[in-house]
Amino acid sequence: MSIKIGILGYGNLGRGVEAAVKMNDDMELVAVYTRRAPETLKINSDAAVKSVAELEKGNEDIDVLVICGGSATDLPEMTPKFAKLYNVIDSFDTHAKIPEHFANVDAAAKAAGKIGIISSGWDPGMFSLNRLYASAVLPNGKDYTFWGKGVSQGHSDAVRRIDGVIDCRQYTIPVPAALDKVRSGADPELTTREKHTRECFVVAEDGADLARIENEIKTMPNYFADYDTTVHFISADEMARDHSGLPHGGSVIYSGTTSEGTKHVIEYSLKLDSNPEFTGSVIIAYARAAYRMNNEGMTGAKTVFDIAPAYLSAKSGDELRAHFL
Amino acid sequence: MSIKIGILGYGNLGRGVEAAVKMNDDMELVAVYTRRAPETLKINSDAAVKSVAELEKGNEDIDVLVICGGSATDLPEMTPKFAKLYNVIDSFDTHAKIPEHFANVDAAAKAAGKIGIISSGWDPGMFSLNRLYASAVLPNGKDYTFWGKGVSQGHSDAVRRIDGVIDCRQYTIPVPAALDKVRSGADPELTTREKHTRECFVVAEDGADLARIENEIKTMPNYFADYDTTVHFISADEMARDHSGLPHGGSVIYSGTTSEGTKHVIEYSLKLDSNPEFTGSVIIAYARAAYRMNNEGMTGAKTVFDIAPAYLSAKSGDELRAHFL
Repeated sequence: MSIKIGILGYGNLGRGVEAAVKMNDDMELVAVYTRRAPETLKINSDAAVKSVAELEKGNEDIDVLVICGGSATDLPEMTPKFAKLYNVIDSFDTHAKIPEHFANVDAAAKAAGKIGIISSGWDPGMFSLNRLYASAVLPNGKDYTFWGKGVSQGHSDAVRRIDGVIDCRQYTIPVPAALDKVRSGADPELTTREKHTRECFVVAEDGADLARIENEIKTMPNYFADYDTTVHFISADEMARDHSGLPHGGSVIYSGTTSEGTKHVIEYSLKLDSNPEFTGSVIIAYARAAYRMNNEGMTGAKTVFDIAPAYLSAKSGDELRAHFL
Repeated sequence: MSIKIGILGYGNLGRGVEAAVKMNDDMELVAVYTRRAPETLKINSDAAVKSVAELEKGNEDIDVLVICGGSATDLPEMTPKFAKLYNVIDSFDTHAKIPEHFANVDAAAKAAGKIGIISSGWDPGMFSLNRLYASAVLPNGKDYTFWGKGVSQGHSDAVRRIDGVIDCRQYTIPVPAALDKVRSGADPELTTREKHTRECFVVAEDGADLARIENEIKTMPNYFADYDTTVHFISADEMARDHSGLPHGGSVIYSGTTSEGTKHVIEYSLKLDSNPEFTGSVIIAYARAAYRMNNEGMTGAKTVFDIAPAYLSAKSGDELRAHFL
């Protein structure tokens, strides 16, 4: 008997989740739900394509709904709404609003007897786990997170919303000297600007005011204002040829001491060919956890912090102890 | 109110646990228990030093007992025995016997309403976690574990048991070419010999047969026979001057695919100035988990796989979500 997965939203992340389901024998994708007209959507598997209106009726035969929406406006509304009907999981990543989102999903999921996992993926997600494990083991220490080199979809989207911009690919790049300093255990104080640079490849509309676009990018609060950013205007053909992938990665580096002069450095790093497929893979492992935990009677909002690692694996406790411990 | 820790056994690991307790404000070391005459033992804190006979009475006022014994003979007997009386934690690392040890501790702890965490530390422990997380996220992949450069206490002890050997420090060293190949995502098939080399620094008795000692080391089954090993005979002074620390470390590297040609590499690595202090720090974080889980009514044997990460941290769920997620 497989775990029945539904996907809401079929953009990059939805397709990544779809790819991840195929890697797991104990799961099947039963349906993709869309706000578009279902007959216009072609997907990469033989699951059903249905309108989100079907999902809202609450009778879909799915064990876990993976909600693939944007953190800015989609997820704050969708995740609590669907947690009233199904076990749900999202990848909400607006760090400042996580407490509020957690509370909303918790109330909805508890009332319905469902599990709602929020902020799953790699950051938040696997990186968060590594920050927590390291700081719990070495409370006298400090964590550093570096992202990239890779495409930030949030930053690319932010640039795309600028008037006159047709397309953008934004690469986040760690500053090598900063990485080296942190890996040495030197515990440097680093400003935002000292840790990463940002590089934007932009396709603009014919006749657009490029100087204005470049200025709007470089001064955009939260996204770019605190970084050294370079902007390149390229053609649509160059974009398709050179920037079609969505690679990403990064490192969480933690250094801490256990006694005078005794230092330890912990590093967790990812090199990802496809950010959406890896994010989808993390989400799907946690979807398995959501299903199992709910079967055991647990309800409410959960994050990666609240979930024992064994719930993520299709293997039994005996197998895990024999082969992974 | 602090969590009251007892330590059984005051060797390198016991002292590492003692150092770790000092880093955690919510914990206090109440006593070190020893099989030696208590009055002969000087410890690095103002906790009591008591005979293990006191512990056996079952009335000691401790929340968690950290059992710092050897995996070969101490822990298989001690951990189940004391799990009948206290919440316990050990760092049992004989991989092949983990299922049996788990079953024995589980029976004892369940009968007593206690928690018994086994095989905590970094390998088994943090490395095990990373093998599990990576394989759950990328089921179509492969894990590699490299140890070192660092002192293996088990291998050093094995050499010390050879007739004519006074002291030994054994360094485990990853083969750089193997590391590079794995990090590239090439998924190589590597023999034991291709992954690590071993280097022994040995102080021998005056007049000992050095050729025989070297041969006994290099042909020792399980420990050395499958590796390229170099042996250096040095003086006691050189040992004290050049090899007094117990540094260690290593990497778990996992590479997996999510679709045709789409590859991801996950690496978790440790660089440790002191193996016992880091191991002790992991154990102490899991001791906190043992205490909390037992307070919530959970009992039986647990490994790092069974414990939600949030239990390890002194911080609240709200704090963790706000600052680490």
